[in-house]
Formats: sequence, C-alpha cells, structure tokens
Amino acid sequence: MYVIVNRDQPATHLPGIEHRTLAGGDQGLARLSVWEQIVAPGAETPPHQHDCEEVVVVSEGYGELRIGGEALRYGPGSTLAIPPNVVHQIVNVGATPLKLLAALSTTNVEVYLPNGEPFPLPWQT
Amino acid sequence: MYVIVNRDQPATHLPGIEHRTLAGGDQGLARLSVWEQIVAPGAETPPHQHDCEEVVVVSEGYGELRIGGEALRYGPGSTLAIPPNVVHQIVNVGATPLKLLAALSTTNVEVYLPNGEPFPLPWQT
Repeated sequence: MYVIVNRDQPATHLPGIEHRTLAGGDQGLARLSVWEQIVAPGAETPPHQHDCEEVVVVSEGYGELRIGGEALRYGPGSTLAIPPNVVHQIVNVGATPLKLLAALSTTNVEVYLPNGEPFPLPWQT
Repeated sequence: MYVIVNRDQPATHLPGIEHRTLAGGDQGLARLSVWEQIVAPGAETPPHQHDCEEVVVVSEGYGELRIGGEALRYGPGSTLAIPPNVVHQIVNVGATPLKLLAALSTTNVEVYLPNGEPFPLPWQT
C-alpha cells in the first residue's frame, strides 16, 4: 500500500494536454489523486466542474484560470485553490508548455461539463 | 474562494525542514492540503502518522521512505503514496536538498507520534 511510483509511465492525452496520474486508485488511494499535466501553448482544458476540491501547482509556463467570469493569471510558482462544483478552465496563454501538478480530494474523479453532462476522462484517476 | 497563491511566502521550520503551506484551510479548503518542503541533507521528519492519505512528489534530491520496516529509496520524479494511519518517516539520504510537494487528503492535518501522542505542527495546514 505504500508505493513509490516513478514517472516514466506513458502519457494519456486530451487535445493539447499530456496527462499522467502520479497517484490515485491504482495506489490504493480513495480520498486523493495527484496528476501531472503538460498543456501545450494555446491549449486548454474544457470548461468543467467536479465535486471535489482541487489544488494546482504550476512549475513552468503561464496561464489563465477562467472561473466565475474572471481570468486569473498565473505563472511558475503559482498555486490555484479551486473549490468544488464551480466551473473552471485552465488555459495556457504563453508561448511555452504549461507544466502543473493537480491534487484532487477524491478518487475516482468524476468530471462534468457546465451543462451537467458527464465528461468521461480518458485516464484512470 | 478560487485563489492564486504565490510562493513568496515566508517559510516555517522544523529542524532541517523548510515548510510552506501552498494551499489549505486559509484558502477555504476542507478536504485537501498541499505543502512544499525542503529537507536539508541529513535531515528527516520525525516518524509520524496521520488519519489521512498522503502523496509526496519529489522534484529534487534523494531520500528514503521508512515505513513498515522498509526503507524505500526515491529521487527526482518519484511519487510516494502513503496510506492513512501508518507510521512513516521521510529522510534525506543525499548530499543535496530534498525538495518535495506533499498533498494530504484533509485540512487541518493532525499528526501523531508512533506512540499516539499528538505532534502539534508549527504551521497552518
């Protein structure tokens, strides 16, 4: 149950997003998932929401958090704290890859579009 | 409630450990805390346990996770998944600082020594 995962795992992709689940259900977790994502310049997540808390820590690149009608800018060293059930979108507004870690307060993470439709993730959480 | 925290905050210290709470109760979170820690060469956390799940992502340095009678080695790019209520210890066994992010599945995080005594943290979670 105490696992060391090394990061040389293959990535899963959404358009413009390279995703790796660093820890989650496969490591026996139920209340926590940690993801690594690299968002290409100009790429973005879909606007989405989930019934869990999320913290994003940015290590490289520049982006916007679109949430509640605002567009909050961030860069290397920024941390985003996103409450549950609020539609948000992560956008890379820079010319270089946006690299981040995302911690989510559950496993599995169920994601919904703004209209409430499920958005099935292509990766294991 | 959706907050961008920048990392130029002062650190709190345990012996040999530089700590920053990147996100937690102060950002309105209840089910998630994210910490940044830099462990000096030769330094270590006390052996401890908590009733929450923990994921540690190592960005720099080399260490051991002492848990369940084992000493598991890790380095840059390693992820540790630590189940609740298991005594563990993070040790820097290298010659350079060990830099990590820790995600924990609750706020506030209550930490206990192996004998069950509370170990009050000097930082806000």
